Amino acid sequence: MMLKAAARTNSVAKARLFSTSRLMAQEYRTERDTFGDLKVPSDRYWGAQTQRSLQNFDIGGPAERLPPPLIKAFGVLKKAASQVNVTYGMDPKVGEAIGKAADEVISGKLIDHFPLVVFQTGSGTQSNMNVNEVISNRAIEMLGGELGSKKPVHPNDHVNMSQSSNDTFPTAMHVAAVTEINASLLPALIELRDALDAKAKAFDKIIKIGRTHLQDATPLTLGQEFSGYVQQVSNGIDRIKDVLPRLSLLAQGGTAVGTGLNTKKGFDVKVAAAISEITGYEFKTAPNKFEALAAHDALVETHGALNVIACSLMKIANDIRYLGSGPRCGLGELSLPENEPGSSIMPGKVNPTQCEALTMVAAQIIGNQTTVSVAGSMGQFELNVFKPVIIKNVLQSIRLLADGSRSFTKNCVVGIEANEKRIGQLLNESLMLATILNSHLGYDNVAKCAKKAHKEGTTLKEATVALGLLTPEEFDEKVRPELMLYPDEE
Amino acid sequence: MMLKAAARTNSVAKARLFSTSRLMAQEYRTERDTFGDLKVPSDRYWGAQTQRSLQNFDIGGPAERLPPPLIKAFGVLKKAASQVNVTYGMDPKVGEAIGKAADEVISGKLIDHFPLVVFQTGSGTQSNMNVNEVISNRAIEMLGGELGSKKPVHPNDHVNMSQSSNDTFPTAMHVAAVTEINASLLPALIELRDALDAKAKAFDKIIKIGRTHLQDATPLTLGQEFSGYVQQVSNGIDRIKDVLPRLSLLAQGGTAVGTGLNTKKGFDVKVAAAISEITGYEFKTAPNKFEALAAHDALVETHGALNVIACSLMKIANDIRYLGSGPRCGLGELSLPENEPGSSIMPGKVNPTQCEALTMVAAQIIGNQTTVSVAGSMGQFELNVFKPVIIKNVLQSIRLLADGSRSFTKNCVVGIEANEKRIGQLLNESLMLATILNSHLGYDNVAKCAKKAHKEGTTLKEATVALGLLTPEEFDEKVRPELMLYPDEE
Amino acid sequence: MMLKAAARTNSVAKARLFSTSRLMAQEYRTERDTFGDLKVPSDRYWGAQTQRSLQNFDIGGPAERLPPPLIKAFGVLKKAASQVNVTYGMDPKVGEAIGKAADEVISGKLIDHFPLVVFQTGSGTQSNMNVNEVISNRAIEMLGGELGSKKPVHPNDHVNMSQSSNDTFPTAMHVAAVTEINASLLPALIELRDALDAKAKAFDKIIKIGRTHLQDATPLTLGQEFSGYVQQVSNGIDRIKDVLPRLSLLAQGGTAVGTGLNTKKGFDVKVAAAISEITGYEFKTAPNKFEALAAHDALVETHGALNVIACSLMKIANDIRYLGSGPRCGLGELSLPENEPGSSIMPGKVNPTQCEALTMVAAQIIGNQTTVSVAGSMGQFELNVFKPVIIKNVLQSIRLLADGSRSFTKNCVVGIEANEKRIGQLLNESLMLATILNSHLGYDNVAKCAKKAHKEGTTLKEATVALGLLTPEEFDEKVRPELMLYPDEE
Amino acid sequence: MMLKAAARTNSVAKARLFSTSRLMAQEYRTERDTFGDLKVPSDRYWGAQTQRSLQNFDIGGPAERLPPPLIKAFGVLKKAASQVNVTYGMDPKVGEAIGKAADEVISGKLIDHFPLVVFQTGSGTQSNMNVNEVISNRAIEMLGGELGSKKPVHPNDHVNMSQSSNDTFPTAMHVAAVTEINASLLPALIELRDALDAKAKAFDKIIKIGRTHLQDATPLTLGQEFSGYVQQVSNGIDRIKDVLPRLSLLAQGGTAVGTGLNTKKGFDVKVAAAISEITGYEFKTAPNKFEALAAHDALVETHGALNVIACSLMKIANDIRYLGSGPRCGLGELSLPENEPGSSIMPGKVNPTQCEALTMVAAQIIGNQTTVSVAGSMGQFELNVFKPVIIKNVLQSIRLLADGSRSFTKNCVVGIEANEKRIGQLLNESLMLATILNSHLGYDNVAKCAKKAHKEGTTLKEATVALGLLTPEEFDEKVRPELMLYPDEE
Repeated sequence: MMLKAAARTNSVAKARLFSTSRLMAQEYRTERDTFGDLKVPSDRYWGAQTQRSLQNFDIGGPAERLPPPLIKAFGVLKKAASQVNVTYGMDPKVGEAIGKAADEVISGKLIDHFPLVVFQTGSGTQSNMNVNEVISNRAIEMLGGELGSKKPVHPNDHVNMSQSSNDTFPTAMHVAAVTEINASLLPALIELRDALDAKAKAFDKIIKIGRTHLQDATPLTLGQEFSGYVQQVSNGIDRIKDVLPRLSLLAQGGTAVGTGLNTKKGFDVKVAAAISEITGYEFKTAPNKFEALAAHDALVETHGALNVIACSLMKIANDIRYLGSGPRCGLGELSLPENEPGSSIMPGKVNPTQCEALTMVAAQIIGNQTTVSVAGSMGQFELNVFKPVIIKNVLQSIRLLADGSRSFTKNCVVGIEANEKRIGQLLNESLMLATILNSHLGYDNVAKCAKKAHKEGTTLKEATVALGLLTPEEFDEKVRPELMLYPDEE
Repeated sequence: MMLKAAARTNSVAKARLFSTSRLMAQEYRTERDTFGDLKVPSDRYWGAQTQRSLQNFDIGGPAERLPPPLIKAFGVLKKAASQVNVTYGMDPKVGEAIGKAADEVISGKLIDHFPLVVFQTGSGTQSNMNVNEVISNRAIEMLGGELGSKKPVHPNDHVNMSQSSNDTFPTAMHVAAVTEINASLLPALIELRDALDAKAKAFDKIIKIGRTHLQDATPLTLGQEFSGYVQQVSNGIDRIKDVLPRLSLLAQGGTAVGTGLNTKKGFDVKVAAAISEITGYEFKTAPNKFEALAAHDALVETHGALNVIACSLMKIANDIRYLGSGPRCGLGELSLPENEPGSSIMPGKVNPTQCEALTMVAAQIIGNQTTVSVAGSMGQFELNVFKPVIIKNVLQSIRLLADGSRSFTKNCVVGIEANEKRIGQLLNESLMLATILNSHLGYDNVAKCAKKAHKEGTTLKEATVALGLLTPEEFDEKVRPELMLYPDEE
Repeated sequence: MMLKAAARTNSVAKARLFSTSRLMAQEYRTERDTFGDLKVPSDRYWGAQTQRSLQNFDIGGPAERLPPPLIKAFGVLKKAASQVNVTYGMDPKVGEAIGKAADEVISGKLIDHFPLVVFQTGSGTQSNMNVNEVISNRAIEMLGGELGSKKPVHPNDHVNMSQSSNDTFPTAMHVAAVTEINASLLPALIELRDALDAKAKAFDKIIKIGRTHLQDATPLTLGQEFSGYVQQVSNGIDRIKDVLPRLSLLAQGGTAVGTGLNTKKGFDVKVAAAISEITGYEFKTAPNKFEALAAHDALVETHGALNVIACSLMKIANDIRYLGSGPRCGLGELSLPENEPGSSIMPGKVNPTQCEALTMVAAQIIGNQTTVSVAGSMGQFELNVFKPVIIKNVLQSIRLLADGSRSFTKNCVVGIEANEKRIGQLLNESLMLATILNSHLGYDNVAKCAKKAHKEGTTLKEATVALGLLTPEEFDEKVRPELMLYPDEE
Repeated sequence: MMLKAAARTNSVAKARLFSTSRLMAQEYRTERDTFGDLKVPSDRYWGAQTQRSLQNFDIGGPAERLPPPLIKAFGVLKKAASQVNVTYGMDPKVGEAIGKAADEVISGKLIDHFPLVVFQTGSGTQSNMNVNEVISNRAIEMLGGELGSKKPVHPNDHVNMSQSSNDTFPTAMHVAAVTEINASLLPALIELRDALDAKAKAFDKIIKIGRTHLQDATPLTLGQEFSGYVQQVSNGIDRIKDVLPRLSLLAQGGTAVGTGLNTKKGFDVKVAAAISEITGYEFKTAPNKFEALAAHDALVETHGALNVIACSLMKIANDIRYLGSGPRCGLGELSLPENEPGSSIMPGKVNPTQCEALTMVAAQIIGNQTTVSVAGSMGQFELNVFKPVIIKNVLQSIRLLADGSRSFTKNCVVGIEANEKRIGQLLNESLMLATILNSHLGYDNVAKCAKKAHKEGTTLKEATVALGLLTPEEFDEKVRPELMLYPDEE
């Protein structure tokens, strides 16, 4: 069928829609590596090895590029290394130029010069070289040299001095994760916790029916219910903080296999200090570099903490959307903010879209956990070669949790209102309040009341009064949910 | 610490680096929905509901946009629906304009007008509206109208006629997945299978040591070893084909809850036929629309097949990189193509980077399986609201498998060479060949030979001759690996 | 603290509570293998290799034993192999004795003689030897010989003739999975589908509110809602059937590495035929034995189908428990059978315990999918050595799905009743019915009615009448949910 | 086919092989609950609710029983609660009898009286009642009363006093996990770490080729390589210890929905103290009981730590089996202990079976992580009803890690020997040593040497000497791997 062929051409066309070719200018310059010469777009700073990776790993397109925070962390690392290398004898002019170019990497303004995808060499060597090439060329440019000349700032001899992809990439992984956690995730979780806590306090006096197994149970306050969510998020913050010490240990100084060959004694400690200085977060050199190159347990552990938070948010968002279900035919205890048209005809119809986004975030992260575990378990001898896919998933999970929490807080939590009328109705209809009459009327009589009410579809009060066991006044005096919210005084 | 604050600002700046704001022009026009007026960048076709989603779901940035194949599938669907709607009475001029605008969506040229991310409303309503708005405005433009006027082509009344997000989104999910599988994944897998098969045939006469438990075992040919890979990929192709019938069933016609309210009898069948015509792939209307909206089992099933292929490729890529390990201190039976500098000093060092990329692809997909399962299991009543995250993961897995296979085929498999000398050496050193002497010398004598050779580090032949059990000539005559490759004739 | 030490002792004691030592009798006999002599409980048929495994793999205790269906499948295989071996010249008396002993393995009466756990050698060699040893000794006993003498039925030379653990274990995996699917899972799923279908038919006339995003939507019948579940289970049955052809291919005949060394031509085909005859299910020999030993893709694929069914059941069970939530403060549309005391005081409280069990089954299986994928992806060269953990998880998932479905059908589905009164109340309260007035009153007027009703908490009818747009009679005539259940006639 | 029917009957027979019916005696007594009378085997202490669960949840058979450590933890809890209840006024005689019966539960001697499976009510109510019933009846028996009479020790009024299944089950979950971690897992991991550390020290002087990307790299010592494993396990120990504070918080005192209704103020704190006293591990009452009932984040977090350890062990076991591969055709750097016959004819063939068992353990746990995450994310309102499947998976993972580590330590690690001759050969053949000549001969000359050696298959030394760049003596003096193991002195 003609259309089928057309569809296929279209599809391939489309599949390549965002391909790297769009970034390439008309003009090229020649760069070279040990494999020979290669044409590179003249408006890009990258060199031959980056270009080679672009051509050899056409997998997934721009959506699969290594995430910006990792590139930024590489900028931090290269700046730190150049500072330390100067103390070991590197020409200070070269060091300074590297530092300035690295600052531009850190700032994000060179992001379009980092086109490589996750699915490349498993050590991330090509991304390390991408950074080396871009910083080298930008530093050369700043110093008035010729792009691609590798003079006076050589990508390997200077930018990568005393380093190996095998220790820089894991260092950048840790720096990126620690930075994103501190600068983005923790503030977002704190915001969420505080917003939930404000609701917990605001709802402190609203007594509602509890639900276990989804079935009516004894009452609690809406504030108590929200306090559980506060505790979950609060614990999540602690969980993330607890993994930071191990995540803040850096592989830098291990070079190719962990021995530190081609570095100087003390290089590792100094680089960690310089990175701490640049970022404002505390990093230390890893006590065992063999472990730091060959395994990424600290990132598997970190994702374990992210995964718990995802599970917590799944629970919280599920609760809130069920409590907000309705407006007429659901539970209807909460009103969620109306952020966008649900339906053109249904004024009361508010779809819990923020909950939906957040639960999709959670589903993504629960799956990322599997990816990170598989990838983290498969180191071989002196190197784990699943580095890019590990850090991609960790950074994605951090960002989704941070953005998702922020969006949920701002567009949902702060606007939640309690439908006190509905909550009161349900509470009064409940047969569970009978529990408190046990000591007054005895189990058998109470059971009779509850059964009668259930069978006849009346309230508990009606049934109890009809059975002549209590007067309406007595019932109201005794059956008071507000007495069912705490343990008894001794 | 001052730097810390700066780092945080940087981080946030960076985190927003690719944010949607970059796409926004200086100029705006006003669009409106039932919530009121909203400013929209004047160089974009989208309308108020898209803009609202952009603002309310700032989660993950452009890397999390819904993938282009889904947008294209929406184009196909809108075109098909407009054709069918004309047969039910829609103004043919309107229908034709929708069709032309939809063609531009299909071609990919409007891709920058689809900025919405995965983590939005779980029904994908906002993306359905994004498509409706873009096609409406583009059609209006074609017809000389005013953008945002909704005349003469209304996004809801015309582009979305007889449709609901609840049936369009799952329809687009299936159309996108079927199309990508047919146009991209299957051809890539066929290429890979054929390349492996060519190697299996080329290596047909090369006898090598087998390895079980990683330990030396009885021999087989290198061709036989590769034939196992061929079988795996071949089965993978069949597995994918086997899910297509259920994946080709479309939800379209179910509208809001599956009943088909607001459609005409036969609309569902006609739309499926029109989509088949446009795409060249066979689609049918789903026999039960309630299932088609509320569950996405067919996509969970499809991902199950993708997952098997990922597992197959993990095995194949692992084998190949271990067989190619060395050059001196590994197994060294295969030479993999050298695609980029491994090291500036090690001419023989070829890192198996294509294997690394492919195994990272596999790790990603094994995790995506978890995400898809979780999301697929959580439909509620008449709707599953994890639709965007499901299709995102399915399409990512399809693309990574397709691209990864193509890259692996082209940059690795076709260039694999057998190191026959090394293979022969290992084969001859093996003590496992002794197995064939059992019937000649008896188990005890053979064991003596093998033990002696193992203990003294000699060859089996040397040990056997030294024990006086065979002459060198007899040994060579009897111990022939080529007799160990098949079952005995009866 | 003294108690701490005691607790630890207790814990270790307990951890060993079910340990293998309990099975050991006071009396022992001596068995031997190439490593030497070993004491074996005299009331057990197993030999030295089994005993060695018991001692070397004290991991997890009896709960981790390889599942009975696998042992049974080994019985089937050994019987089939003995029949075929006789055709190739094995002493018919020996063959017959093996067959009789194998029958006892198949029947399950020797199950206590198979004590080995999953976490043993990854090829399952020790379990293959366990079977060889038990059948050998039992056959010897039947023939009046001495246990442990290996005469006249040798565990290796006779019971394992023409076989290797590397082909027997995967053969038994497939035979066990196919058998359990056919004999247990498919009937259970058919029962479940039929029970759901009976409800779909019984509920055919009950019109209820639909729910999308958990929010009130347009109506459907309860029968339509259940028909979605029927479709899901029905598709699940098809999915499982679709994997059977590949699952029915047997590795037998590949021996150690897939070449078939030490078998006769045709052995593989004959064994598959014999197994088909014994089991009543059709098996064929695998077209490529290298793949059949080194990969277990067919089992990964099979688990993918089981995983879809788990996701389906999660959705169905979730729906049913939410629809049955209450009795007063939930949705309350369904009454689930009361199987056990929910609470001593709450007559209406029925916990949806069958739903809870089934959703836990689903959660287990979604995780098993990850285990099977990881294990299935890690074959090395000529052998995958994650065989026991793969088949353990596959058989567990099959059994849990089968038992869980049966339990859910019998103890929940068949007893579900519709609360028609409640369903009718909710339907009438819904504002969504307004949708049908659009064509009569125009969108703006209808919106006014709905908004007024929502704001004032009245019914749609009250609001519409109050606005003077319709009389009560007109409203009742026009707003008829039964007209909203299907597409319009053309 | 006749056989098919027979096979099916067999299968069903077998499927029920271990069913609960085997435990049932001929004799019965009558027990009752609010649903009525029920026959219970007279040699069992359980009552009507246990029996009802047995009948209603025939899912999975004995292999799916709740694990013994949970039952034991229930014993601990019931003993603690009885002690505290006495301080609040319960008859001390009753309290003492409960304590004694609970001690028997703790000791494990009553384990056959706990037949319930994981897949029951999701709150574990039936297992809580099983414990109440068994302790009640055993206490009654001790006091000379009649089984089933509920006098003088009532299962609800006394054994369950001030408790609800909703707080007891999560309490028992935490107590069981903390106890197993402390008493079993941590000692096993410490043993493993120490055994690896002993090897790291013993191998301290053995210089070997490093491998990155599986390819030859710069050297390190075998001790350094093992030191990475030591660090991984050591970190694993810390990771587990770090989750204990949150895992040691107990839900007890929350009763039905977290409010503590029906308990006395201070009950929660006292119970936690009593449990600490009994177990010797420090427990505290949870600061928020709503969270403690409705979510099990602490267990998801704990499994996250177990999951990291599983990933670590996968890496370590993989390395060791590859390093031990051979004997002739693999890497052959390590000799692993020979624990069982690998093959009757191959004296050097040692299958790395302990590595295989351990990697299967890891695969199981990586999957359990998914199950625990899914189950942990799905709490609803005041209760998570996936409790049994969560604790089952957590306890299984703890036990498998503990047993697997112990088995691996004892049967593999302690017996590992280095094949120094082989290690030396590989090191000397490596071309990577050339790296150190860079500063002496210049990059270009060194590259020539390496290329010549690679091309001609000679050693680096031969090539260097042949090129006239160094004498053999000079080469030996300069090319010294022992200088490549550490950073340079400043």
